[in-house]
Amino acid sequence: MRTLGVVGCGLIGSSFALAARRAGCFERVIGIDTNEQNLKTAQELGIIDSTSGLSDCDAVCVAVPTSTTPTVVLDIGHVLSNAATIFDVGSVKTSLIESQQQLPSNFVPAHPLAGSHLSGPQSASDSLFEGKICVITPLINSSNDHVARVRKWWEAVGSSTKTMTAEDHDRAVALTSHLPHFLSRVATHLVSQESMDVQELIGSGFRDFSRISAGDPLVWRDIFKDNQVNLKDWMNSFHKESDELLSLISSDPSNLEYCLAKVAQFRRSLDPV
Amino acid sequence: MRTLGVVGCGLIGSSFALAARRAGCFERVIGIDTNEQNLKTAQELGIIDSTSGLSDCDAVCVAVPTSTTPTVVLDIGHVLSNAATIFDVGSVKTSLIESQQQLPSNFVPAHPLAGSHLSGPQSASDSLFEGKICVITPLINSSNDHVARVRKWWEAVGSSTKTMTAEDHDRAVALTSHLPHFLSRVATHLVSQESMDVQELIGSGFRDFSRISAGDPLVWRDIFKDNQVNLKDWMNSFHKESDELLSLISSDPSNLEYCLAKVAQFRRSLDPV
Repeated sequence: MRTLGVVGCGLIGSSFALAARRAGCFERVIGIDTNEQNLKTAQELGIIDSTSGLSDCDAVCVAVPTSTTPTVVLDIGHVLSNAATIFDVGSVKTSLIESQQQLPSNFVPAHPLAGSHLSGPQSASDSLFEGKICVITPLINSSNDHVARVRKWWEAVGSSTKTMTAEDHDRAVALTSHLPHFLSRVATHLVSQESMDVQELIGSGFRDFSRISAGDPLVWRDIFKDNQVNLKDWMNSFHKESDELLSLISSDPSNLEYCLAKVAQFRRSLDPV
Repeated sequence: MRTLGVVGCGLIGSSFALAARRAGCFERVIGIDTNEQNLKTAQELGIIDSTSGLSDCDAVCVAVPTSTTPTVVLDIGHVLSNAATIFDVGSVKTSLIESQQQLPSNFVPAHPLAGSHLSGPQSASDSLFEGKICVITPLINSSNDHVARVRKWWEAVGSSTKTMTAEDHDRAVALTSHLPHFLSRVATHLVSQESMDVQELIGSGFRDFSRISAGDPLVWRDIFKDNQVNLKDWMNSFHKESDELLSLISSDPSNLEYCLAKVAQFRRSLDPV
């Protein structure tokens, strides 16, 4: 019986378990979590079948906060056969790049661009990865066979896969994901400090803009920490652009309108027609 | 027959026409727009019945970019009986505050906190204002009778009304709406400058965060311009908070996690249970 291990039964780990089982990639799921409530919920919902037997798994999905990933991967590497595959789902690969010389050849980093402002196994869905992109970032030791298997599983759960270096990945997601999360958190913090009279004036635009601010604090602490060099670089670009746009507001309304129109056109192009 | 005039048949003007007619406040709608396509669409969709006869209206809704509002209100004031009511729907009241000594007593500023990243009469909806807040900001000349009528109409289309000074309103929406729009536009601009390899890594978080960037360029040019003093003030607060959070990322992960948790909790409190 093909068995999947999931270390970290939160939203992403639990959703992968559900989706990979539905796709027929695995028949049995072993779950591990330091959060006992998550583990209990995942068992009650039938997401995992057992909480022991990780060393006999055919594949292990590591879905823990990114600062812990290298240690967890090394620990699992010691007990698991090299024929079995280990992969993670972390949003930033810095800590893996730093320890890549030590990481086993059956480990493959992956990052599904899927998520939710909700967290925990109770929010898991077997369709979370459908139509999404999963980025695979092989490290120097990663064997081609294991990379091919990880790609196959992510495609089986409905994602397109894209291969990049871990460094390029971290710089790109710092812009498309971590910068917006950071900006949203700071603005939401400012609003949270104001009176009810101000907070009553929140509309649907702010709700959309700030939805990502509700993400798991522990996960985002690690993402910001691990990707701080790229994030700070983008924040510098952000400050420069923001100063330029602010100066157009007072000095050049027609150029301002032109810039706003270009941005609006780009944003509209991201929506399905 | 009670007649509503709508000057500016875009999303908000057209939606108010539909909603107020459905609520039984008016039986007939006169529409005016410098954009001939908007006017044609509004007629074809039955949003307006005619394009002439503004001087005979019982109420006129001014839904034009905010820099034009004072001139339009003054012009309408000259042709309309003082028994009829004029109100606007603009997101910022600065230009009205500046010219309030000249504005007629039958003019009442209003701002429905409702909208969409879509624009034009083709996106109008008679339920756009249901469950939303409409802020009424009477000026020194505004007569109580006309304020009461405007409040009644906005309540008839499903909104709760809230009265504030125009100055308090502008400072509050600069934070809850104009700052997020500005931040979102700058970040979306940065992403639009990058390669397809980077843009492919856009996920649902970025889509939510950047949805407001697609708003009408002319409307937002005026909002940013009219409310630039408040926007710049909030941008200063933003830079301060952003520097503090960035420094926590490198220096104090547990305090960072605590701050992220507080923001997440506040954001979750904005969603219906």
